[in-house]
Amino acid sequence: MATATRTVTEACLAAQHASHELASASTEVKDGALRRLAELLEERAADVLDANAADLADERVASLDAALRDRLALDRERIAAMAAGVLDIAGLPDPVGELLEERTLDSGLELRKLRVPLGVVAVVYEARPNVTVDCAALCLKSGNAIVLRGSSYAARSNAALATIVREAVDDANLPQGAAELVEGGERSELAELATQEGVVDLVIPRGGEGLKAALKKVATVPVMYAASGNCHVYVHADADLEMARRVAFNAKVQRPGVCNSAETLLVDVAVAESFLPGILGDLLEAGVELVGDAEARQAAGEVPVGEAGNEDWDTEYLGMKLVVGVVDSLDEAIEHVNRHGTGHSEAILTSSNEAAQRFTDAVDAAAVYVNASTRFTDGFEFGLGAEIGNSTQKLHARGPIGLRELTTTKYVLTGTGQVRE
Amino acid sequence: MATATRTVTEACLAAQHASHELASASTEVKDGALRRLAELLEERAADVLDANAADLADERVASLDAALRDRLALDRERIAAMAAGVLDIAGLPDPVGELLEERTLDSGLELRKLRVPLGVVAVVYEARPNVTVDCAALCLKSGNAIVLRGSSYAARSNAALATIVREAVDDANLPQGAAELVEGGERSELAELATQEGVVDLVIPRGGEGLKAALKKVATVPVMYAASGNCHVYVHADADLEMARRVAFNAKVQRPGVCNSAETLLVDVAVAESFLPGILGDLLEAGVELVGDAEARQAAGEVPVGEAGNEDWDTEYLGMKLVVGVVDSLDEAIEHVNRHGTGHSEAILTSSNEAAQRFTDAVDAAAVYVNASTRFTDGFEFGLGAEIGNSTQKLHARGPIGLRELTTTKYVLTGTGQVRE
Repeated sequence: MATATRTVTEACLAAQHASHELASASTEVKDGALRRLAELLEERAADVLDANAADLADERVASLDAALRDRLALDRERIAAMAAGVLDIAGLPDPVGELLEERTLDSGLELRKLRVPLGVVAVVYEARPNVTVDCAALCLKSGNAIVLRGSSYAARSNAALATIVREAVDDANLPQGAAELVEGGERSELAELATQEGVVDLVIPRGGEGLKAALKKVATVPVMYAASGNCHVYVHADADLEMARRVAFNAKVQRPGVCNSAETLLVDVAVAESFLPGILGDLLEAGVELVGDAEARQAAGEVPVGEAGNEDWDTEYLGMKLVVGVVDSLDEAIEHVNRHGTGHSEAILTSSNEAAQRFTDAVDAAAVYVNASTRFTDGFEFGLGAEIGNSTQKLHARGPIGLRELTTTKYVLTGTGQVRE
Repeated sequence: MATATRTVTEACLAAQHASHELASASTEVKDGALRRLAELLEERAADVLDANAADLADERVASLDAALRDRLALDRERIAAMAAGVLDIAGLPDPVGELLEERTLDSGLELRKLRVPLGVVAVVYEARPNVTVDCAALCLKSGNAIVLRGSSYAARSNAALATIVREAVDDANLPQGAAELVEGGERSELAELATQEGVVDLVIPRGGEGLKAALKKVATVPVMYAASGNCHVYVHADADLEMARRVAFNAKVQRPGVCNSAETLLVDVAVAESFLPGILGDLLEAGVELVGDAEARQAAGEVPVGEAGNEDWDTEYLGMKLVVGVVDSLDEAIEHVNRHGTGHSEAILTSSNEAAQRFTDAVDAAAVYVNASTRFTDGFEFGLGAEIGNSTQKLHARGPIGLRELTTTKYVLTGTGQVRE
């Protein structure tokens, strides 16, 4: 692999150089590269699987837990899913060149505000080889050069996939630097990547809290932190309790390991006794560990609920545990959500339009749901076609990070010799 | 002043509390507060001028240079200009509540993407009391609570103006915490302000490089750095040279102390000898110190041009000095601008549509001009009605920071019990 011997700085500079050409590549050329990438993924699946088998055979992998090993493992089906994802991205509208504003200024200048690529996007990720392809495809489509820094556990898989990406880029006559892979593993390389001021325009971490914390310490270039989600489901006094039971169950249990799953169930005191025994019984049966405040434990009836500690309200369990609280009012629920939430996804169950309006106005989060599961916060579900993560920041991008969120803007002003008086 | 005895943290928490109410304040109420503010500025002008006189009489002020003393000084006219600015802001469209997207998802969820306030915006600034009023008005209109941290040199003026702002806020039945003033002067207080994670949503520095550097060291909350501008004017081979002469002169001389003025003049080798003697003569006559590369010095003819050092190409003079270079081609000009520019405002003079297109495509800056002075990069000139600064960052806001740039978005999703399969 040519990439393996480059320094991080060399890779970033190559990406920057490529980014200038990529910024003015036509939609047709970029989509051509993506279609070729999808083809090559199918054609070279055997190479990728061999590389992946070598990664999995590494003795260090035995020390990973089952979930991480599963994320690292590829098979024909997963490769086909990557290829399908790339074709989906090829089918999305190109954000680059979108005319956002156009007007004639008092001075006579013709102002246009255009969407343009960011330039160089670096993605640092853990042992999930599919991220290599997903993120490269999103960056290519949005006209950005990408610097990929994966995990050393997936080094062979990532290298095999990056080779395919670079071949597709080359076949489309786009510059090789459009997709650079740097070796993962060393924290010093993470620092080198995250301090490329004026070269790397954005770093996106795709990984756990450890990776984010490591990045926070060293980064001097902008970072878009993918979100942790301490999400709440609040059952209002006027809720349809059957609907609330299905939604709360789904928000907790359907995929508890992801950031948009619920960690806290808040129930209005008016419906606590009628609602809690049913839903808590369902959750217990599904294997969810339950803790709660005194009122919730009492209202739970015969369902055993442990005593919640203060820290439970601020914990993203990312697993089969839920904390349950009883609130006296809509305002108390809003206050609780704003104090303990992480601004990701928050839901109210209510038949009252007024309560729904007040909750969606006052809750400070990227996505606020009325009568639906928090689990829908996702670029695909939101119709963005794809996502590179989900932002709980308020600046630049809030919510799923799709193609548009990988762009910036440029004002172009055309005159006839205007000068400022 | 009640504000004078509060800690920075207390002021920020009061602002956060107020921000929740402010976020759902109607346009009518916010504009009412702004109109009242304009009235009070006129009514209380004498109080403000007394406070300003006391600031100016402080013995420390004598040590300030003339330009800084001038910025600190208020008179009736400047107060009237502040009031007029506030009324202008009252007349602008309210960005809050703007519906940015609306669609029905495959799941049946009704998705809306709404513009919402950021929450709490902190502005740190130097001895320019007008910033107190300008920024408070922009934040009020955009539904944000503001924490103002001015310079101790302007403490009395700022306090007098903040009192008026708070009275206007109160008269409109908006919460007092909507505008908080904290004492300036201590760097420890700057750090306290810039580390209010989860409370302050954005810090905007309005000041010189020293202030920005101090903030960069300590800030953990997002900061939008107002730009430095190493701006270029490039005279292409196909330029209308008479127009180029007027535009280059204006870009340098009309107000050399601001960030959108030009610091470098690049001239295509094809027109260097015919163009340079005229424009350089104009500039010299206006009092501009000239330095240049060997080719420019030779093409300058009888106009004396000093020898440019390497550092000149990267210096924002912010004064009556200009560096002049000759380039061999459009591509060399683009490369020079992208290497040395700060991404603020860049201009090409050309009659060639093709050259103009290539320059505006390839130059990586917030604003790119064809046949006009760089001096137009400004919220007022761009029709934003006002600005709180100018961003050369690529994330969130690029170019003038107006009302919209002080907002974020929120997805609101309304369902009928949807769960994720």
